[in-house]
Amino acid sequence: MKLEKLVGDRFKERPADCVIDSHALMIRGGYMKNVANGIFSSYTILRRITRKIEQIIREEMDAIDGQEVLFPVMLPASLWQESGRYESVGRELVRFNDRNDSPMLLGMTHEEAAVHLVREYGQTYAKYPFMVYQIQTKVRDEPRPRGGLIRVREFTMKDAYSFHTSQEDLEAYFMRCYRAYEKIFARAGLPQVIAVTSDSGMMGGSTSHEFMLLTSIGEDTIVTCKDCGYRANMEAAGSIVVNTGFDASQQLEKVHTPEMKTIEGVCGYLGLPVEGSCKAVVYQKNLTDEYIIVFIRGDLDVNDTKLGNFLREEVHPADITEDSGITAGFIGPYHSDKITMLFDKSLVGIESMCCGANEADYHYTGFNIERDYGAAEYHDFAKAVEGGVCPECGKPSLSVSRGVELGHIFQLGKKYTESMNMSYADANGERRHPIMGCYGIGVDRLAASVCEVFHDEYGPMWPLSIAPWQVHLCCVRADNEEVKAFADELYDRLLSEGIEVIYDDRVVSAGVMFSDADLIGAPVRIIVSPRNLSEGCCEIVTRDKSVNMKAGNADVTGAVKELLKTMLAGSV
Amino acid sequence: MKLEKLVGDRFKERPADCVIDSHALMIRGGYMKNVANGIFSSYTILRRITRKIEQIIREEMDAIDGQEVLFPVMLPASLWQESGRYESVGRELVRFNDRNDSPMLLGMTHEEAAVHLVREYGQTYAKYPFMVYQIQTKVRDEPRPRGGLIRVREFTMKDAYSFHTSQEDLEAYFMRCYRAYEKIFARAGLPQVIAVTSDSGMMGGSTSHEFMLLTSIGEDTIVTCKDCGYRANMEAAGSIVVNTGFDASQQLEKVHTPEMKTIEGVCGYLGLPVEGSCKAVVYQKNLTDEYIIVFIRGDLDVNDTKLGNFLREEVHPADITEDSGITAGFIGPYHSDKITMLFDKSLVGIESMCCGANEADYHYTGFNIERDYGAAEYHDFAKAVEGGVCPECGKPSLSVSRGVELGHIFQLGKKYTESMNMSYADANGERRHPIMGCYGIGVDRLAASVCEVFHDEYGPMWPLSIAPWQVHLCCVRADNEEVKAFADELYDRLLSEGIEVIYDDRVVSAGVMFSDADLIGAPVRIIVSPRNLSEGCCEIVTRDKSVNMKAGNADVTGAVKELLKTMLAGSV
Repeated sequence: MKLEKLVGDRFKERPADCVIDSHALMIRGGYMKNVANGIFSSYTILRRITRKIEQIIREEMDAIDGQEVLFPVMLPASLWQESGRYESVGRELVRFNDRNDSPMLLGMTHEEAAVHLVREYGQTYAKYPFMVYQIQTKVRDEPRPRGGLIRVREFTMKDAYSFHTSQEDLEAYFMRCYRAYEKIFARAGLPQVIAVTSDSGMMGGSTSHEFMLLTSIGEDTIVTCKDCGYRANMEAAGSIVVNTGFDASQQLEKVHTPEMKTIEGVCGYLGLPVEGSCKAVVYQKNLTDEYIIVFIRGDLDVNDTKLGNFLREEVHPADITEDSGITAGFIGPYHSDKITMLFDKSLVGIESMCCGANEADYHYTGFNIERDYGAAEYHDFAKAVEGGVCPECGKPSLSVSRGVELGHIFQLGKKYTESMNMSYADANGERRHPIMGCYGIGVDRLAASVCEVFHDEYGPMWPLSIAPWQVHLCCVRADNEEVKAFADELYDRLLSEGIEVIYDDRVVSAGVMFSDADLIGAPVRIIVSPRNLSEGCCEIVTRDKSVNMKAGNADVTGAVKELLKTMLAGSV
Repeated sequence: MKLEKLVGDRFKERPADCVIDSHALMIRGGYMKNVANGIFSSYTILRRITRKIEQIIREEMDAIDGQEVLFPVMLPASLWQESGRYESVGRELVRFNDRNDSPMLLGMTHEEAAVHLVREYGQTYAKYPFMVYQIQTKVRDEPRPRGGLIRVREFTMKDAYSFHTSQEDLEAYFMRCYRAYEKIFARAGLPQVIAVTSDSGMMGGSTSHEFMLLTSIGEDTIVTCKDCGYRANMEAAGSIVVNTGFDASQQLEKVHTPEMKTIEGVCGYLGLPVEGSCKAVVYQKNLTDEYIIVFIRGDLDVNDTKLGNFLREEVHPADITEDSGITAGFIGPYHSDKITMLFDKSLVGIESMCCGANEADYHYTGFNIERDYGAAEYHDFAKAVEGGVCPECGKPSLSVSRGVELGHIFQLGKKYTESMNMSYADANGERRHPIMGCYGIGVDRLAASVCEVFHDEYGPMWPLSIAPWQVHLCCVRADNEEVKAFADELYDRLLSEGIEVIYDDRVVSAGVMFSDADLIGAPVRIIVSPRNLSEGCCEIVTRDKSVNMKAGNADVTGAVKELLKTMLAGSV
């Protein structure tokens, strides 16, 4: 199409409210426009990109025997009441009443809808396994949308649901989907996306993997091992702490530590190592507000997700009230009927530690948990740290980095089929609940992530597979009749060869033309200009500048086709 | 794909709650499943059909320079407050508050979102005209969903919005879109869809056309002229009534008509023609409950839409209270400060009529409006009737039939660009509001309508262009190794030729196999069976039975390709 008619504005200034580059470039390039906080419209360019991504996903889902279906966005609450999630999921689930006052919700994920669709179909074991998927709008009322398309309240997602009669079958299919995801990300231009072990969160189920793009703009924290293949989301990463070289048991002593409410402050004041101290972190259960105190080595942090999983309910940092009986800032282990005390494994092996004395302005030194508190169970509540011990290979090689989650695959087990009473007759005629897997990819977020990885200060550099157009044809000096006539003819020739072309024949300066082309980011640019024409050739340049060549006027189409072929094969 | 793995059940019994055939067949064939009243999920078969329809629409929209974009489903109320529709649209608009208590809504149409998207872009006249469209989920909380996919609460729609600097330009584009719509319906298999003049309803604007499929299951009433090209939705159809042969003016007389509250009853009792009587129909304004009485010839009905358009506000049939001063059942024209009296043109030329006397159990005869009530203005409020006078050619040739609305195109004028303050600088630098058009097609409804037109008692007969698969390959006696091997090989051959095949190799009776094939409705069926194989051939049958031939085993693929080509050309 002609650039002149492309709806959407392009401009130079980086918008002040854009924190990450892909967001700024997509706003500057006329890709998207914000409609409300975390809600946006896509212009032509972005829609062309997302449609290509959708098609790649569709092909790979079909290749692993997926069947495309469509679930509603608006669902009756009754469906989520069956699974129990209507009550358990928080305010990110949009709930409202319809005109007949029936409670409804907007689907943020479709496990319930999937079970509803196939509940009658999957009555006998012979029908299994099967997988259904959709590419559809999802609504998730995020409290803090951010980063352009990275975390939004409405987005396009591919979500797939598989059904199996055995764990082995699920696992085999899970691996097929895992491979399909690798293909999808590679085809979209991001072969560097890695799978990490993750927490299953509100989805339920056991095994789950996130497909992560490691990037500083990510909102997830990823733990990887430099020595072995271990990769996990911080939420799911195990922490191993080995305590050696600490003093043997000493005498318990109560010391005055006025106004010192942080463990770092106290240790500094007393000249003790923070690694030998016992920090208290206070939480409350979301449902009951009951207090939980987690004791952990002073230099470490509590992983809320691990704590929540251990308690099997959600928790939040505590609001410590006066009547709680808790002496904030001076907490040490003590016995209480009302408050649960938990101990992190990082405390094992420290015989003599500094901790709060449960009295304002006083701490203990020489505290020994077994001696001074009593028998304690130790569990893993700590966040993994840079240089920490890998739970897989045991070497102190953990590395902590940021990542964006682009996909997520879960082994759901029977959570939904049991609660929603979906069953089949096995070979012996006995009723059993099928085992489910589910598999998601965010389409818009993938587009933004590709942009985040492939861009320079002037604009995105789209991989050929998802580029809005393959070729950007610039007619420099379109007011020159001869130049314009040649460019017009070349445009037609390219189109007739089935090449996707955006054609800029505006009478604007070459500078404006090229900066617009940079923002649109088509991988190949052809420049027709008076000078080139006088030499009987065109310039062919790739967006990433790796190729810069001239082709004779008669050979342009052939040269471009050859170049596109090489790019598709991945060698440019 | 293999039929054995097709998700969704097929069965014989017509579901009791299905009123129309397409609904019954789509339930019986495993096309869709109800999730809630007016909300459904699509199985694989239907999704394959709707994707093909979407692609046809996309191609035709691109061909008239449309640019595909994507608007959000969830919109901030502020956007609809700008246009005034947040207040004016009824409960079919889903409204709710988000987690921050901001009022939101679910898009049932996207004029506001379209203006929002292009408001900054369209700043100068040189950018015009342009059109953006999307194919996206719409939510409309209908009070009475019905007919399977005919009227639902959530559906997929293509909605397009064009922007122009002159009425002439809008009209020229409107005609291009009109032609594109004709192509879309023809390509989807329904060339018989007609465009009718319609009421613009809540969209605002002036000229609008609906694309109607005339069918007895339709919920719209369509008025067509047998003599000229006049075609209109009943809501917009003009009514012309010529009164001749009635008595000249007679004396006013009050007669006792005990308990006779209908004009038919009264006229029967008095031996007077209903066509010579004056019926009162009472309405109330939606906003104020103010009463409106419309007087109309006794045999005719009031067209609510025309009445609402005349009053420029919405009305509903009245709830006549005791303190209204209205003597229900015995109403005649009288003067009132509180109540608006309106007169339909059908009363013109009746000098002497029967009407209520505004007193219980009494009517007048010989009532003459000018003499006994006073000067009255007459307007067109009547519904057109079978055999009525055509407003276009003046012949008494009107015909009334039922229709389903498949598309709607509107000339919106400046309603949205003015209210939402979108403007451009014209050639003289003056600010002007662009003129808009909008253009919708319901994707699911189109699928259902094609099924409604093309089916027999056994199932749908999908046109090749939107069929879920082109070919249904039946392997009768798949337990016979030789037959199965041949069918498997043929399946591969067909796939390698790029033909879309659903392959039934289940070990089931030919009866089950064929009735499943009927429900899936692929246009071409190939039957491999022991008998055919012994003759060295396959049977090739079209779903509509118009072709039934045999092809030698080696020639099957060629014969099928030839047949598909002929079908695409439209000659089968």
